[in-house]
Amino acid sequence: MSTTTAQTSTRTIRDGAFGHATGLACRECGATQDLGPYYVCRECFGPLEISYDFPAITREQIEAGPANIWRYKALLPVPADIELSPNMEPGYTRLLRADNLGRELGIARLWVKDDSTNPTNSFKDRVVACALSAARELGSTVFACPSTGNLANAVAAAGARAGIKTVVFIPSNLETPKQVNSAVYTENLVAVDGNYDDVNRLAGEIAGEEDGWAFVNVNVRPFYAEGSKTLGYEIAEQLGWRLPDQIVIPVASGSQLTKVHKAFQELIKLGLVEDKPVKVFGAQATGCSPVSAAFREGWDAVKPVRPDTIAKSLAIGNPADGVYVLDIVRETGGAIADVSDDEVRDAIVLLARTEGVFTETAGGTTVGVLKKLVETGQLDPELETVVINTGHGLKTLDAVTDRVGARATIAPTYDAFVAAGIA
Amino acid sequence: MSTTTAQTSTRTIRDGAFGHATGLACRECGATQDLGPYYVCRECFGPLEISYDFPAITREQIEAGPANIWRYKALLPVPADIELSPNMEPGYTRLLRADNLGRELGIARLWVKDDSTNPTNSFKDRVVACALSAARELGSTVFACPSTGNLANAVAAAGARAGIKTVVFIPSNLETPKQVNSAVYTENLVAVDGNYDDVNRLAGEIAGEEDGWAFVNVNVRPFYAEGSKTLGYEIAEQLGWRLPDQIVIPVASGSQLTKVHKAFQELIKLGLVEDKPVKVFGAQATGCSPVSAAFREGWDAVKPVRPDTIAKSLAIGNPADGVYVLDIVRETGGAIADVSDDEVRDAIVLLARTEGVFTETAGGTTVGVLKKLVETGQLDPELETVVINTGHGLKTLDAVTDRVGARATIAPTYDAFVAAGIA
Repeated sequence: MSTTTAQTSTRTIRDGAFGHATGLACRECGATQDLGPYYVCRECFGPLEISYDFPAITREQIEAGPANIWRYKALLPVPADIELSPNMEPGYTRLLRADNLGRELGIARLWVKDDSTNPTNSFKDRVVACALSAARELGSTVFACPSTGNLANAVAAAGARAGIKTVVFIPSNLETPKQVNSAVYTENLVAVDGNYDDVNRLAGEIAGEEDGWAFVNVNVRPFYAEGSKTLGYEIAEQLGWRLPDQIVIPVASGSQLTKVHKAFQELIKLGLVEDKPVKVFGAQATGCSPVSAAFREGWDAVKPVRPDTIAKSLAIGNPADGVYVLDIVRETGGAIADVSDDEVRDAIVLLARTEGVFTETAGGTTVGVLKKLVETGQLDPELETVVINTGHGLKTLDAVTDRVGARATIAPTYDAFVAAGIA
Repeated sequence: MSTTTAQTSTRTIRDGAFGHATGLACRECGATQDLGPYYVCRECFGPLEISYDFPAITREQIEAGPANIWRYKALLPVPADIELSPNMEPGYTRLLRADNLGRELGIARLWVKDDSTNPTNSFKDRVVACALSAARELGSTVFACPSTGNLANAVAAAGARAGIKTVVFIPSNLETPKQVNSAVYTENLVAVDGNYDDVNRLAGEIAGEEDGWAFVNVNVRPFYAEGSKTLGYEIAEQLGWRLPDQIVIPVASGSQLTKVHKAFQELIKLGLVEDKPVKVFGAQATGCSPVSAAFREGWDAVKPVRPDTIAKSLAIGNPADGVYVLDIVRETGGAIADVSDDEVRDAIVLLARTEGVFTETAGGTTVGVLKKLVETGQLDPELETVVINTGHGLKTLDAVTDRVGARATIAPTYDAFVAAGIA
């Protein structure tokens, strides 16, 4: 039985299972096909994306929804009763006015969209929630992913709460604390002797061979990826239903950047925000910066690299959406830049000390790139700017362990306190 | 200059600085005094609590507020323009229907109030936000605390974002990762050679000697403590403006339990929820269970103990509000129980695997006690029950490192996958 028909052949999908989604369309050749666990175009092997026929929707309808991503359910490939199925209820995270960081960087109006306060502390809870809904509607019996970090946490947690069998594949050399972050949620953490590429390849093979397995970032990827749109919806709503002038987004596969851009375009088309240009900027770590390199060199293609950076959650050497990122950034007048691991570490501390937000290395990369873009004149500091923080620093504590610490060690007396000159 | 007049003597407090708060009243003798950085009754040295003259307020007014604790600002000692001052915007965390956990424990209708998704991943962001407002309005120049963990994180982060000088005192033997969690936000982490009691004593001394220092849990404690009421408000609102039948709350100082109870009473008085009895239960770790012991033995007083438990954030051997906890629990028909460190570990894994919520040892204690209360028949499993999770498991990872891990290690091939029997 082939991968793409394994699940739907034995099961009827209920009406409205995917909300207002109408089908899957190839991003390369435009060929369409029915909704299902398909991720590759039958015609040209290009990536598939969800198509919709959106209803009329008002700001008030959205505002009356819950304080999580389901307030936007009409714009996602999920059923109208999605709130009734046990899920992590992610999203509607803080959009923080960042005047202190803005002052440091010389940016007049700056905001941080802080996704570190999601249920498992990264934006992955958003995409996994959409993948879980698809898995449920498709009748999948196993919920799975290959991952080294944030995705593993999100899948293991969401699967536990949903009560679906969940299997998470990790490289066997992953550090113990990172294994614990996922193993606490699932008894099915499987260590694979190999690197992430080996684990990923094995996942693809299992998805092709086994009936009923939904790998969130493989065979239900088109549904999964749509979850990132909610970052864009929330930013617009939290700004008072308007778009920022500029946005800086980290680039791993590149999916998040393309989906936030897509979200802004959808809101314009639906009349929920006023049409205006938004410059989209991408951030990479120098040790894994294939899209940044292509942007700098003016290439249309992205040349794969072998990652070597502390920003592990961005370390995708051959990003699936790299060329789409290049298109969007060039179209909108943005840019892509990269920063060194040391700049990543500096930016983590800078964000924490100015705004009280402890980000992981991916967020350090994004804030570091924001700083560089101002310094190089590629980003206009007079325009309103949003920077996305995708995950929590507690997950990559080692990155700053040598950077911060106690200022002084004193005896437990008032005299010692005075002598230390802290007052 | 004495502690209690140091700050107000040189500064006029603006009108409305503390919202609808009217004064400070002693919980022991009832003597009242003006609002200020006071925490001990002038008459009898009893603890002080905020008094209010609440305005009429509707559900709709609250619902129109932001998705954080300031939606309840009219019921807190903060000014009407509190949202304009940089703060962490904590609260309005998820209230999760916990059917899986309920099934495991035999409880029909169970909810988890999950405060692990607060900005610094514990409920402390709530109380610190109220303390920060008080410090600002009192003209304090330094924001400070003694702490070993969650409170240090919350104070360091909030102080950074507010742009106020922030000093955090910790015992010098605190593990490096826990130091990093606070040091990332502040350059003024001060290590004190001594145990937590020594650090706490030093904080009290500094508060008494230095002008303008606001120690959140010392001289602005009455304001600080009010922040815990928001847990109660949110639970009621998220249940659809009604109270649960039973609630299980961890007991450290005991303040949170008393404030959640107070919040429910306030909502009843304000006509925002229907009056009904709510049984209040307290949870302690056996290694620091002075209030549980007093409850069991029928004592009116709480006998101090020397803490020895992995639930460090609950390890207060001489809880300030212990006797008030006893009163509330006895009045409402609740109970207090305690569980061993092993039961705490089991409960952490149980909650993660049933609901996808990774809690720290304090939450493990609370869920463990919930389980025990059902088993001993002290908690009625037929009644609607809420259990509070106060913090995130990433902060106490060691507690479960030996409990969970990979199920299998396999070669990166489909055959190896099949042979492992995971499908």
